[in-house]
Amino acid sequence: MLFDQTIPPFLKILRNLSAILDKADAHAAAKKFDVSILLNDRLSPDMFPLIRQVQIACDTAKLGAARLAGKTAPVNDDGEKSLPELKERIKQTVTYLETFTAADFAGSEERHITQPRWEGKYLLGKEFLREHALPNIYFHVTTAYAILRHNGVEVGKKDYLGEMPFKH
Amino acid sequence: MLFDQTIPPFLKILRNLSAILDKADAHAAAKKFDVSILLNDRLSPDMFPLIRQVQIACDTAKLGAARLAGKTAPVNDDGEKSLPELKERIKQTVTYLETFTAADFAGSEERHITQPRWEGKYLLGKEFLREHALPNIYFHVTTAYAILRHNGVEVGKKDYLGEMPFKH
Repeated sequence: MLFDQTIPPFLKILRNLSAILDKADAHAAAKKFDVSILLNDRLSPDMFPLIRQVQIACDTAKLGAARLAGKTAPVNDDGEKSLPELKERIKQTVTYLETFTAADFAGSEERHITQPRWEGKYLLGKEFLREHALPNIYFHVTTAYAILRHNGVEVGKKDYLGEMPFKH
Repeated sequence: MLFDQTIPPFLKILRNLSAILDKADAHAAAKKFDVSILLNDRLSPDMFPLIRQVQIACDTAKLGAARLAGKTAPVNDDGEKSLPELKERIKQTVTYLETFTAADFAGSEERHITQPRWEGKYLLGKEFLREHALPNIYFHVTTAYAILRHNGVEVGKKDYLGEMPFKH
């Protein structure tokens, strides 16, 4: 049952990403520059800018959950340009992820998962989650975080990881 | 049983990281600069340099696996300064991870996991893996990758993800 390894971590990292974007917004306001400068920055000329990193993180979660559950995900047009639009994109993705139940993931471990660029090849669900979806979503959230850190936004590892469900 | 969600992805991402460092080495040689410039670069003055990102990725894997299995991990002195030393650190970690068997992970889901800085608080094994160890290792490998991309090393997402076990 892959539900627990998929939906809770996707939800958590996207919520953390949204809170990190709030800190970017506050930083830009304090320094009196347009936050879109951050949204359009990138670490290398041939890497995606922050906006696209966030869109891909959302798509990784949306499509990953849908494919594991054998559903068809809603389509996004990737037209986000502003910070509120980007936060809304995350919010929509969170709302979509929240529709999934553990029952939706019955059989997900062995489900054949493919995507258009794989030209008919497939992974088993458990392989897809472990080797593709999870490494990918953390890659894009970390890259978004790195773009902001590189620009002086005061975020830290705790913003990325979020709160731990500690017990005493 | 958390073995499958722990040891194979840790091994894979560390091997990918080692191959990424080889590309950094080749890049420095081709451009005729000392690769230690890359090893000591960072994305922000208050972020760790590449060497430390690699060391932490190794520690996340080593300590994560040991804690989930209820073992005591070997200690590293973090004295690596050169690229061969850093690659050896990864290799030692890979060799250590390879000693674990599925049986070592019996009961790991519910095991109480703690570490010194948590001051007695704990997470369940399944929470620790999902919310701490996996996001952390991907964070540090992605940050190492980002430092190299920012410096013009020609690595791509495929170097980070590695080969997929595609089926036809």
